[in-house]
Amino acid sequence: MRTLSLNKKLFLVQSGGFLMRLQIALDTLTSSEGVALVELMEKDIDIIEIGTPLIIREGVSAVAKFKNAFPDKKVLADLKIMDAGEYESTEAYEAMADIVTVLGVSHDTTINGVVKAAKKFNREVLVDMIAVRDLQKRAVELDKLGVDYLCVHTAFDEQNSNHNPLDELKLLLELDLKCNIAVAGGLNLQTVEKLKNTRTDIVIVGGSLTHAEDPKDMARKIKEQIA
Amino acid sequence: MRTLSLNKKLFLVQSGGFLMRLQIALDTLTSSEGVALVELMEKDIDIIEIGTPLIIREGVSAVAKFKNAFPDKKVLADLKIMDAGEYESTEAYEAMADIVTVLGVSHDTTINGVVKAAKKFNREVLVDMIAVRDLQKRAVELDKLGVDYLCVHTAFDEQNSNHNPLDELKLLLELDLKCNIAVAGGLNLQTVEKLKNTRTDIVIVGGSLTHAEDPKDMARKIKEQIA
Repeated sequence: MRTLSLNKKLFLVQSGGFLMRLQIALDTLTSSEGVALVELMEKDIDIIEIGTPLIIREGVSAVAKFKNAFPDKKVLADLKIMDAGEYESTEAYEAMADIVTVLGVSHDTTINGVVKAAKKFNREVLVDMIAVRDLQKRAVELDKLGVDYLCVHTAFDEQNSNHNPLDELKLLLELDLKCNIAVAGGLNLQTVEKLKNTRTDIVIVGGSLTHAEDPKDMARKIKEQIA
Repeated sequence: MRTLSLNKKLFLVQSGGFLMRLQIALDTLTSSEGVALVELMEKDIDIIEIGTPLIIREGVSAVAKFKNAFPDKKVLADLKIMDAGEYESTEAYEAMADIVTVLGVSHDTTINGVVKAAKKFNREVLVDMIAVRDLQKRAVELDKLGVDYLCVHTAFDEQNSNHNPLDELKLLLELDLKCNIAVAGGLNLQTVEKLKNTRTDIVIVGGSLTHAEDPKDMARKIKEQIA
């Protein structure tokens, strides 16, 4: 999967653009409500994130529900793994997750466990960089461990303090990383514009889509903004 | 709840002993298997931990199953919360969890959110110190935030590298903390002996109980060891 991403990146750099993918984060909905919501905006969504609170409520079987409903979409299980990397990620890959998340603050042994399981299932690993202290140093370490994505992520609990993921994104973009980059944390129609031409691969939007008055229209507008 | 713990600590210090509680961590079992296992050793178990992998598999409703089966035991939901502290912990408290875990590496805003929810429900918060870099500094910070327990925890993924939680426990015991102390990470009948007279409040045992040839007998022996 990683090779595919690199080829895609090469192709896109050659063709002069970088195609960003839109990921919808489903946190506060039930899986049934989430399926109905994604149906509305299906053409503009590339990746469906089964958020941590949704997994806490319903268990990892929620992942399979979305994969069965949308077999052509990638489904990400936001487990935020902190330990038992191989064991916990295997639960999600077995439940049909295409991408599983692990925390950047976890031990390298945990990251290695998730990478091992991902290789076995031919799936992908996204590292959530939430609360990582030395972002650039840790990014270089994680890139060497063979993860597919690094995600700069302003915690939900930090979004009231004027933090946003764009400053952290700049730090990652200064590095020469093999892996792809994802951005999350309170993004909306206004802030996604700033991601244009940044070589961001995945743009993750939660509340701005799930709480939009017209979610279908908002998905279309955001997708146009990052196209 | 915190006041009770302090009173208990005072009483026990006055009476010359410190009563350690035994917590069984249920990770790899289903909730039905877990209930059957705890029934075998009920008299020696004080706290039932619904482990992270079990919550991933079954969702937080597993917590209520155990609380209904064992209303006199404390049930801990090992969510290892990293963000959305108030929101995610509320899910677990609503599912009848007595104690919810949050990661020591998370932002203070996240810890505060879990503490706020715990106070609302009159329940407790345990901070998992897994992968915390400066243990003593962070312990003092977290103690001031009003958490009930700090848990030194050697990651499962680190247990093959001769790490154990006893060295970290020593570091915590050098501090003057208001909160209680829990210890986890590969503990067994031999290693729990080293916890005697250490003012540890909760001793967490997983595989040594769940994979024991005779789990009932093992629970009795471990409880005797820490009595």
